[in-house]
Amino acid sequence: MPERIYNFSPGPATLPYPVLQEAASDIVNFHDKGIGLIELSHRSKEFMAVAEETELLIRELLQVPDNYKVLFLQGGASSQFFMIPMNLLGNGKKGTYINTGTWSKKAIKEAKLFGDIDVAYSSENATFNHVPNDEEYTVDSASEYLYFVSNNTIYGTQFARMPNADTMLVSDMSSDILSRPVDVSRFGIIFAGAQKNMGPAGVTVVIIRDDLLDRSPVDVPTMLRYKTHADKGSMFNTPPCFAIYCVGRVMNWLRKQGGIAAMETINRRKAEMLYKAIDSTDFFRGHAKKDSRSLMNITFNLPTPELEAQFISEAATAGFDGLKGHRSIGGCRASIYNAFPEEGVVKLVDFMADFAKKNG
Amino acid sequence: MPERIYNFSPGPATLPYPVLQEAASDIVNFHDKGIGLIELSHRSKEFMAVAEETELLIRELLQVPDNYKVLFLQGGASSQFFMIPMNLLGNGKKGTYINTGTWSKKAIKEAKLFGDIDVAYSSENATFNHVPNDEEYTVDSASEYLYFVSNNTIYGTQFARMPNADTMLVSDMSSDILSRPVDVSRFGIIFAGAQKNMGPAGVTVVIIRDDLLDRSPVDVPTMLRYKTHADKGSMFNTPPCFAIYCVGRVMNWLRKQGGIAAMETINRRKAEMLYKAIDSTDFFRGHAKKDSRSLMNITFNLPTPELEAQFISEAATAGFDGLKGHRSIGGCRASIYNAFPEEGVVKLVDFMADFAKKNG
Repeated sequence: MPERIYNFSPGPATLPYPVLQEAASDIVNFHDKGIGLIELSHRSKEFMAVAEETELLIRELLQVPDNYKVLFLQGGASSQFFMIPMNLLGNGKKGTYINTGTWSKKAIKEAKLFGDIDVAYSSENATFNHVPNDEEYTVDSASEYLYFVSNNTIYGTQFARMPNADTMLVSDMSSDILSRPVDVSRFGIIFAGAQKNMGPAGVTVVIIRDDLLDRSPVDVPTMLRYKTHADKGSMFNTPPCFAIYCVGRVMNWLRKQGGIAAMETINRRKAEMLYKAIDSTDFFRGHAKKDSRSLMNITFNLPTPELEAQFISEAATAGFDGLKGHRSIGGCRASIYNAFPEEGVVKLVDFMADFAKKNG
Repeated sequence: MPERIYNFSPGPATLPYPVLQEAASDIVNFHDKGIGLIELSHRSKEFMAVAEETELLIRELLQVPDNYKVLFLQGGASSQFFMIPMNLLGNGKKGTYINTGTWSKKAIKEAKLFGDIDVAYSSENATFNHVPNDEEYTVDSASEYLYFVSNNTIYGTQFARMPNADTMLVSDMSSDILSRPVDVSRFGIIFAGAQKNMGPAGVTVVIIRDDLLDRSPVDVPTMLRYKTHADKGSMFNTPPCFAIYCVGRVMNWLRKQGGIAAMETINRRKAEMLYKAIDSTDFFRGHAKKDSRSLMNITFNLPTPELEAQFISEAATAGFDGLKGHRSIGGCRASIYNAFPEEGVVKLVDFMADFAKKNG
């Protein structure tokens, strides 16, 4: 195998190569201290500086207002599915959810344990091939928040614009955080598992507005209260140090690329190349409706499941890994997060054209 | 600084150097696949093999019976403080706790949210300088379990023998798991944060008896049910892949050292050298009572806080890092987990003798 192949995995996903090289060096000996990165006490001045820098870079890149905390938690985005309603609902309080795929469905299931849940819109009967416009649903004014998944990794759909509601927004941005600018001040909570656009698996970044920290019911365990972690700078207990370090290094890389606005331009260019390849022939068929297409996960089908299997297999041989679609819809999927190199998209587009010509 | 210094940190702690070197190589390019370790999908056959091997090695080393699951969870040992009573108590059920330090106190606090908690013994009024004998407490026969912390990192005490109770045992073994043989069949749950004796921070190993998986009350969120993770081989959601990989490499190293029995012999030798150094002069004073002394964390004081500060500072200059005691009791602490090299203990003992002679 060559030193690097093109890894289209939906997550854990490809990371910037310089970050991997830096991590490899620091793991053995961190900044010539004679101790490896993963052996550093989380209370050491060295690691405290790592965590602080990581937080500052996220704040700078996403322009997080001062009245928000940035937390590094464990348990994946899946743990936010219950932590959000556990801390913000209870006592018959209402939450409104938009159901646009597997991850919103799971969040809705957990939320029902803690409150009165209103599903204002669902695209399930259309195999989740789109997200709604603002006009297609209403949010009960009694709702504490409007919950939505900004990008649906499995179905390849994305909110091109964030919902325009008066209600406080809460969003799972696991698969598109930092891929485009976002007005954080419209959100109560933004959260994301790191393993798509930020780093390795093992840390969840939670951006939460200060005033929400005091809403938790009294019977919520200490570790499940946002305030516990906010009060201690995510060091109430031992944090996932290595994952936080890597997120910091990816943020540093992202800043060097010109930040989020520059990254969005590149992301649009990459996605447009692939959608153009899909639309230019009847051989490929996009899963998502055009106005809901994701810039991160490009889902498509070939004429038959047999051709899809052949495509994925020949692509793997040619050095394109991870193109198999999620088992719930089959087909193919190219995940092209921030760190996925543009030249890999150019080469895949060529490969697709070739394959279509030979097998069309 | 030299390539390696002696790192006495209580956790995250020193790891075997060959494991760091292996991780550094795999992070950039895993087994020549052209994808880095932390970029691998958790569903890839490569990572599935890593997780499986890690589990098998833990099973082999600890001789885990077939009717137990080995889970890789997130949230630290601190999350087990509430998950255990949340899943095993409720509805007025009783749990018995032995209070021997900071970590059992925290566990007791969380347990009270879920059941009727009986604290059968506490050494708090003796600054937690010992653990009890079996004769010093009784366990209510109505108790679902007897909870104890096998080794107290902060105070440097350890149960030389596990409690001999008819009740099912539940134990936080974060700071001494795999340091000595243990009869797993006497336990309902054994758990441990990895960052002391197993690997980096970011994964908690939970060993749980099968029949306990079905006891959770209906209102427990999906991610907080042990059964959720047991049914999916710890892959219900994206696991902390890197930390699991490292634990596997540490287990592989441990097997090469001769397994747990061989490791216990080395651990005894290391601890005895340090306790002998402490006992051989009035200059040093051990914190723990002799029959409760830990083989993992050796806590001691010098005649004055000023001399302690001087000792820690001169030790750091000489290449011995992390000797400062926990802020709750002050003084000094040498944490010498499995991966801490014996020659580092020999050298520290020499340094201590020298320091005592000069300043005594």
